[in-house]
Amino acid sequence: MIGIDWGTSSFRACRIDERGETRERRAAPRGILAVEDGHFEAELRRQVGDWIAAGERRVLMSGMIGSRQGWREVPYVPCPAGLAEIAEGLAKIACDDPLNGPEDGPRESLMVRVVPGLSSADAAGVPEVMRGEETQILGVLAETEGRALACLPGSHSKWAEVVNGRILRFETYFSGELFAALRGHTILGRQMRDAPTDPAAFDRGVARAAEAGHLLHQLFGVRTLGLFGRLTEEGAGSYLSGLLIGHEVRAALPADGTAVHLIGAASLSELYARAIRAAGARAIVHGEGAAERGLARLGGIAAWR
Amino acid sequence: MIGIDWGTSSFRACRIDERGETRERRAAPRGILAVEDGHFEAELRRQVGDWIAAGERRVLMSGMIGSRQGWREVPYVPCPAGLAEIAEGLAKIACDDPLNGPEDGPRESLMVRVVPGLSSADAAGVPEVMRGEETQILGVLAETEGRALACLPGSHSKWAEVVNGRILRFETYFSGELFAALRGHTILGRQMRDAPTDPAAFDRGVARAAEAGHLLHQLFGVRTLGLFGRLTEEGAGSYLSGLLIGHEVRAALPADGTAVHLIGAASLSELYARAIRAAGARAIVHGEGAAERGLARLGGIAAWR
Repeated sequence: MIGIDWGTSSFRACRIDERGETRERRAAPRGILAVEDGHFEAELRRQVGDWIAAGERRVLMSGMIGSRQGWREVPYVPCPAGLAEIAEGLAKIACDDPLNGPEDGPRESLMVRVVPGLSSADAAGVPEVMRGEETQILGVLAETEGRALACLPGSHSKWAEVVNGRILRFETYFSGELFAALRGHTILGRQMRDAPTDPAAFDRGVARAAEAGHLLHQLFGVRTLGLFGRLTEEGAGSYLSGLLIGHEVRAALPADGTAVHLIGAASLSELYARAIRAAGARAIVHGEGAAERGLARLGGIAAWR
Repeated sequence: MIGIDWGTSSFRACRIDERGETRERRAAPRGILAVEDGHFEAELRRQVGDWIAAGERRVLMSGMIGSRQGWREVPYVPCPAGLAEIAEGLAKIACDDPLNGPEDGPRESLMVRVVPGLSSADAAGVPEVMRGEETQILGVLAETEGRALACLPGSHSKWAEVVNGRILRFETYFSGELFAALRGHTILGRQMRDAPTDPAAFDRGVARAAEAGHLLHQLFGVRTLGLFGRLTEEGAGSYLSGLLIGHEVRAALPADGTAVHLIGAASLSELYARAIRAAGARAIVHGEGAAERGLARLGGIAAWR
């Protein structure tokens, strides 16, 4: 089987054998926004045509490829949902395979399936959505017993409550995209210089988030600390990152001290782990590969015919 | 006397008589960022040269003209500060007057003074600054007895506590500039269409701010409400505005029900008043002209020689 995590800005594919093990993987900066005029099938064949030629017929895709801007809009599956509900919601895409068989003979078709996203609602009934993260969460937590908490850092980070391997509910935080907007398009960004993450400045931001005062007020402090020489241009970006992640973590962490499973890119996960530990909770950082494992699991129970 | 509120993006001048009454006023989009190569004196003469020719010799300026990017950086006066402390902190600028007197005769100089900004610190010791707002606040509240609360909405809105006509402390909120960054440079803005303020959508945003959940989470709801057809493209901007102002007001309002004096542009003040009333407090909207009244008061007690 070919598993693909096809997001807004990247395309990551892997070849998974019958036992669910990844045999090969590749990635390209060919997210759905880079594909012109909806030529997703052509892009797919460009990226993994050799695997298809070698006999792969099953393609399972997760991520924004299932959104309105992707290949096919797949309806959200409502929470609670585990592997079974998601497998039931897989969408089929008809796909001819011109690389296979004689021009006038029978053509074997690819079996392409798209993983649905999940929907949920917060306490006030405001909708929540994810596409792609469900596959990562189940890749890591589908076999857990009892309650687990997952955090997937990113532009729109997700915090999901998993009970006995099913996603019960989740909440999204806008911190990542907010950071980029503040960094790139406000007066705060004008006093920041590009620099590697400064852990001490990050920790100061995290500590600031724990103090009294609303985020809307504390944001202005990034400016005044700089004005008064108490925050360097090299450290200001890390401080702002710590301030936002610190607020997010404190808002999302339950009071009962549940450990947080961090799923996603290593560098951002490490920053979240710092903030989670600073708030007195335990963080478990999972490596990359959650999407692969989720795709393998879903592929193993999907109805392919 | 000529009073000038010279900010980042606008120049507002008025001619004030001996009794402190404004006789004439004018404005131009000639904020300090529009003045090239520090030619502030030339700009001043261009804007109000006729008043100078008619005999005005005293010029009192407040706002960002006293910042590092302005004509002269004037040190902040620390809070608590009232008219007396601020008048003592006025900076003198030497200004020749080539329009006056014969070329080889004695030249009468303009007396130009710049109002200092104020500094304060929040509970955690993080610095606070304002430039220009102190003049507006004292224009409205210099003669109040007891405790009063002022709010000056804007890119960086200020909430100031005034006791017996002196500014005790203040806090800044980044809501205005944050709104512009979110509107212009995030996915939230892409689902907004330019439209007049929609009061019902604004009120929904204010009500949302009162619900459980962190702002960082509620921001993502702007997107999902749109995705699910529960927020129109015309209303989304007003909703976001209500959400941010609602958060700011709830964070800044004291529990004791003090009325809030709103000082600033009429349309934004009205929105703040809606949010303040929704939170159960009283709002008093002051018209324009606070800076003029503050400049007149400071001009009346300044040491001009």
